[in-house]
Amino acid sequence: MRLFCSIAVVLMVTGSALADPLPSWNDGAAKAQIIDFVGSVTDPASPEYVTQSHRIAVFDNDGTLWAEKPVYFQLLYALDKLKQKAAANPEILTSATLEAAAAGDMEAVAKSGEEGLLEIVMASHAGLSVDEFTQDVANWIESAKHPTKNVPYTDMTYQPMLELLRFLRDEGFDTYIVSGGGIHFMRAFVERAYGIPPEKVIGSAGVTRYAVVEGVPTILKDPGIAFIDDKAGKPVGIDNKIGKKPIFVGGNSDGDFEMLEWATSGDGPRFGLIVHHTDAEREWAYDRNSHVGKLVRGLDEGPDRGWLLVDMAKDWNRVWSGSPN
Amino acid sequence: MRLFCSIAVVLMVTGSALADPLPSWNDGAAKAQIIDFVGSVTDPASPEYVTQSHRIAVFDNDGTLWAEKPVYFQLLYALDKLKQKAAANPEILTSATLEAAAAGDMEAVAKSGEEGLLEIVMASHAGLSVDEFTQDVANWIESAKHPTKNVPYTDMTYQPMLELLRFLRDEGFDTYIVSGGGIHFMRAFVERAYGIPPEKVIGSAGVTRYAVVEGVPTILKDPGIAFIDDKAGKPVGIDNKIGKKPIFVGGNSDGDFEMLEWATSGDGPRFGLIVHHTDAEREWAYDRNSHVGKLVRGLDEGPDRGWLLVDMAKDWNRVWSGSPN
Repeated sequence: MRLFCSIAVVLMVTGSALADPLPSWNDGAAKAQIIDFVGSVTDPASPEYVTQSHRIAVFDNDGTLWAEKPVYFQLLYALDKLKQKAAANPEILTSATLEAAAAGDMEAVAKSGEEGLLEIVMASHAGLSVDEFTQDVANWIESAKHPTKNVPYTDMTYQPMLELLRFLRDEGFDTYIVSGGGIHFMRAFVERAYGIPPEKVIGSAGVTRYAVVEGVPTILKDPGIAFIDDKAGKPVGIDNKIGKKPIFVGGNSDGDFEMLEWATSGDGPRFGLIVHHTDAEREWAYDRNSHVGKLVRGLDEGPDRGWLLVDMAKDWNRVWSGSPN
Repeated sequence: MRLFCSIAVVLMVTGSALADPLPSWNDGAAKAQIIDFVGSVTDPASPEYVTQSHRIAVFDNDGTLWAEKPVYFQLLYALDKLKQKAAANPEILTSATLEAAAAGDMEAVAKSGEEGLLEIVMASHAGLSVDEFTQDVANWIESAKHPTKNVPYTDMTYQPMLELLRFLRDEGFDTYIVSGGGIHFMRAFVERAYGIPPEKVIGSAGVTRYAVVEGVPTILKDPGIAFIDDKAGKPVGIDNKIGKKPIFVGGNSDGDFEMLEWATSGDGPRFGLIVHHTDAEREWAYDRNSHVGKLVRGLDEGPDRGWLLVDMAKDWNRVWSGSPN
């Protein structure tokens, strides 16, 4: 009996050691670096060992866990909603930016800059309860298709990053999203898409308000921005929500720079990762001059800071979780 | 072998069923209601069964998990710090309220209202990094004594509530603090005091800012209030941080009313609990007319809403985790 048990245990351990946790990553330095790091912080005999409660991993969303071209998918949702709303009530188009957006003039939208994007998102998102909004986003995600790839947006999550999230969780990490995207927008799909529950989503947030509406206690979305979870806002958001400095950080743009800088500073083992969009064939190739996912400091300073630049074309043997194209 | 195993399993199950999870609660309706509720939501065969990911329990801190008399303990910390700071630099006392506070004129402090309290807390807390502040609070908690009970503040946590927190966690609940107290103040001691880690603390927050200070990436505390986690702010804070409606809520004052109202509304099993301070001998007796922990609506409307009013004098056979008096 005891012998039988021991053999079973050995088989289980061996099986798990041999399974490749990152099959969509090509063998090479990037994959080896990730696996070595996770091995060292989870091995109690290692000098780099980190207790489970401090194994915090945070990831940007747009451009890191799923695609962000031609524009952030949340903006595509906002434009759809704005057109619907304006068809019913054209008076909501109170500025040239909103009029251009409702007319589908993407060039004018792009030129309106971050302020214009926020204006569009606010005009389209406000006035619903959080529950209604979440349901509306979930419906949209179920039915909408990407303008050029013609597949549901959740098919455009990155398979290698899904494997990395799962690998980290299997090794006792808590995995969080820390994104400039809207917190309620993301919560409508990230649990199913990434296995990340609502309480582990940190994002930008509109103003919300509690009120009893016709007898029903409700959280309402108001106009206005409460928090922008981008650039220097990311470490602030992590400190406020998690209260611990992560030891593993993944991003793809200079909006992630401060989060990477903060989390990879200080004592103890730390891992910074940047997804570099180098794959014009399977995905898109962009960095320094892109209006979304602009990456300059990360390219210039990342390697000297010890951050891993993931070369999408070279390091990934598969890009998508679904089947775009 | 199989028989031996079965007996062992039966013994373990019986042992656990017989152990009292709430030994500091007197047998009676309050204790029975709690145990019945937890039993029903954790029994897969029960129509009230709730999956583990939705077993969210939230608790106010001041007056619910630890005492709050003669004033919130965070204010006592702030007064200590303000006196220290003013001794080094009297120019920081820029108002009559701050001067009264530094002089120890508690009557004037009490009269300054919530705005005065916030002013004192802000003046005493700002200008440090979050790490420095946390360390300072931890040191104070280690060494400071309550003005009348003459014991460390962490001896003044409520033993019955510690047992309730542990019971809920043992039954698969996530336990959160949702308090008007400062988030960084609480994080300095709540993990040790309550077993609640930093990421499960929701509280009021001063403005913070990320900056590289002399080469060190740092989160700094600035003057100003970013979020007040009280009254209608509590459901907003819970929605923002957890993104799920709790099914178990504990509070003690009307500052918890909206959180109780929201979380006990809607479908499915829900439990609202109010700690009623009825024990003038072991603790303090106060409700409607108290300047801290004022409880009016909870008393008037709680019972009709199905909320459990815990009668501290009657329902608890032990109050303190430590040994005040």
